[in-house]
Amino acid sequence: MSTAPLFQRLALIGFGLIGGSIARAARAQGLAGEIVVTARSPATRARVQELGVVDRVVETSAEAVKDADLVILCIPVGACGPVAVEIAPHLKAGAIVSDVGSVKGMVVREMGPHLPDNVHFIPAHPVAGTEHSGPDSGFAELFINRWCILTPPPDTDPAAVEKLATFWRTIGANVEIMAAEHHDLVLAVTSHLPHLIAYTIVGTADELEDVTQAEVLKFSAGGFRDFTRIAASDPTMWRDIFLANKDAVLEMLGAFQEDLSKLTRAIRRGDGEALFDHFKRTRAIRRGIVDLGQETASPDFGRPLAPLPKKT
Amino acid sequence: MSTAPLFQRLALIGFGLIGGSIARAARAQGLAGEIVVTARSPATRARVQELGVVDRVVETSAEAVKDADLVILCIPVGACGPVAVEIAPHLKAGAIVSDVGSVKGMVVREMGPHLPDNVHFIPAHPVAGTEHSGPDSGFAELFINRWCILTPPPDTDPAAVEKLATFWRTIGANVEIMAAEHHDLVLAVTSHLPHLIAYTIVGTADELEDVTQAEVLKFSAGGFRDFTRIAASDPTMWRDIFLANKDAVLEMLGAFQEDLSKLTRAIRRGDGEALFDHFKRTRAIRRGIVDLGQETASPDFGRPLAPLPKKT
Repeated sequence: MSTAPLFQRLALIGFGLIGGSIARAARAQGLAGEIVVTARSPATRARVQELGVVDRVVETSAEAVKDADLVILCIPVGACGPVAVEIAPHLKAGAIVSDVGSVKGMVVREMGPHLPDNVHFIPAHPVAGTEHSGPDSGFAELFINRWCILTPPPDTDPAAVEKLATFWRTIGANVEIMAAEHHDLVLAVTSHLPHLIAYTIVGTADELEDVTQAEVLKFSAGGFRDFTRIAASDPTMWRDIFLANKDAVLEMLGAFQEDLSKLTRAIRRGDGEALFDHFKRTRAIRRGIVDLGQETASPDFGRPLAPLPKKT
Repeated sequence: MSTAPLFQRLALIGFGLIGGSIARAARAQGLAGEIVVTARSPATRARVQELGVVDRVVETSAEAVKDADLVILCIPVGACGPVAVEIAPHLKAGAIVSDVGSVKGMVVREMGPHLPDNVHFIPAHPVAGTEHSGPDSGFAELFINRWCILTPPPDTDPAAVEKLATFWRTIGANVEIMAAEHHDLVLAVTSHLPHLIAYTIVGTADELEDVTQAEVLKFSAGGFRDFTRIAASDPTMWRDIFLANKDAVLEMLGAFQEDLSKLTRAIRRGDGEALFDHFKRTRAIRRGIVDLGQETASPDFGRPLAPLPKKT
């Protein structure tokens, strides 16, 4: 017995890691009668066509949203305002318009005013990703056990929110609802600050005088390589995030700088007790994340192991 | 046809992640006629006995090194000096004495003067590990494709260095030889600074006023969880490392602070071009590490994926 899909037509604007993963997951779960995709670059559109994981690829956002019941912008946050302007006249009455951006305040400010009153605007952020990008990088399992945060404006129709929540739950995500401003503060610490720090330290290591780049790469298993993963994330996406969430990021940076000064002082003074106390405390935090199902319990992230060499 | 093991008797002082991995790997590869282990705590010694992966467990370091051809200290660097004093009178003539500490200058200074002239003192550092510790955490494959850095003092017998290098190669490691001082500078950037930064940011996230700890844990997949891995490393070991490699760590911290200030200024001024240029550059560094076989090419460190939920 087959049931009607949750949405008759799903339009995805953008087909990078997130857009491509939503498409694959929505298709696997039968969530849309038809999936229509557009992307800015002709090369991406051609590749999506070749991949064969969606029903139709069209040239413009205006064309993509036509008759769509759910429209999701899967593009860098800096591009959301202009796309809202472009699609607004072509949206179907009653459609849900959403996005996947890592900053929500700016998306609300830059998209909201352009959208017609007869659509449901529900900004969203799936807290999931890998360091890869582009149309080939997506996969259907990306959102499983991850959180998708919805930040509907206060007057949003609860039935539309619930329908979008059902969409995300069906592709494996947990759904949380919060205010856009609070989202931006939470993500500044759990995502934006870590990326900024990782981008910084990877750059620092690359420019030293006394240690060569070859040495940094060779001996990176001492901890450095962990940071290179998120520092390999999409540069356009991350430029936009830091510009869009400036205040919250600068606030978290201030707190980080205070703590770094404290630990630096402990090292300078040889205060082993202060160091030990700090290091002991942080261990419990990873256990908490593993217990919540947000991290693997396997050592070293479960990185694959090679077999021992043959005995000589 | 069986050949004689490389060492008649291997003594391991300490049985945490590194000691336990050396024992398991050396046994798997048949590198020692007998493996003798000691550890400071009676609980660890009892557990090693239960595990059954070594030949003998003894109560003291003095007893462990008796008649050993290879002695490896697998303990925090701060404990190496006192143990050198303890074992010196009991070492076999011609034995190789080594360690696995993450700082080499201090180990040379604190162990070297106490050891007799008739042993070969060859400090070593396998650049490998996980966030786990204790006698159960070791595994035979830990050192495969990782680098083990040897820092023999200038007048060391090359045959002894080669013999120790063969030991490490046989358990899967690549071997590099360098001066202790240079090692400490290289590791300050590839290991010690990353750990300090990770310990800092994980502490920062835990103490915010506007974001709860529960939120930090829940939404950690945005990048934060990566940092919690190395911030879950053994506190005693890391306290000792920062105290022992203070100057090099402070130097690297200075370079990091300059770069962080530069990026912070770019965010404050809304300089998207500067951010983009930096973020683009760091991506290439991860590719270099993957190409060198020091990191998996799988997205997200190869973290395991769960299946999609059943369609409703």
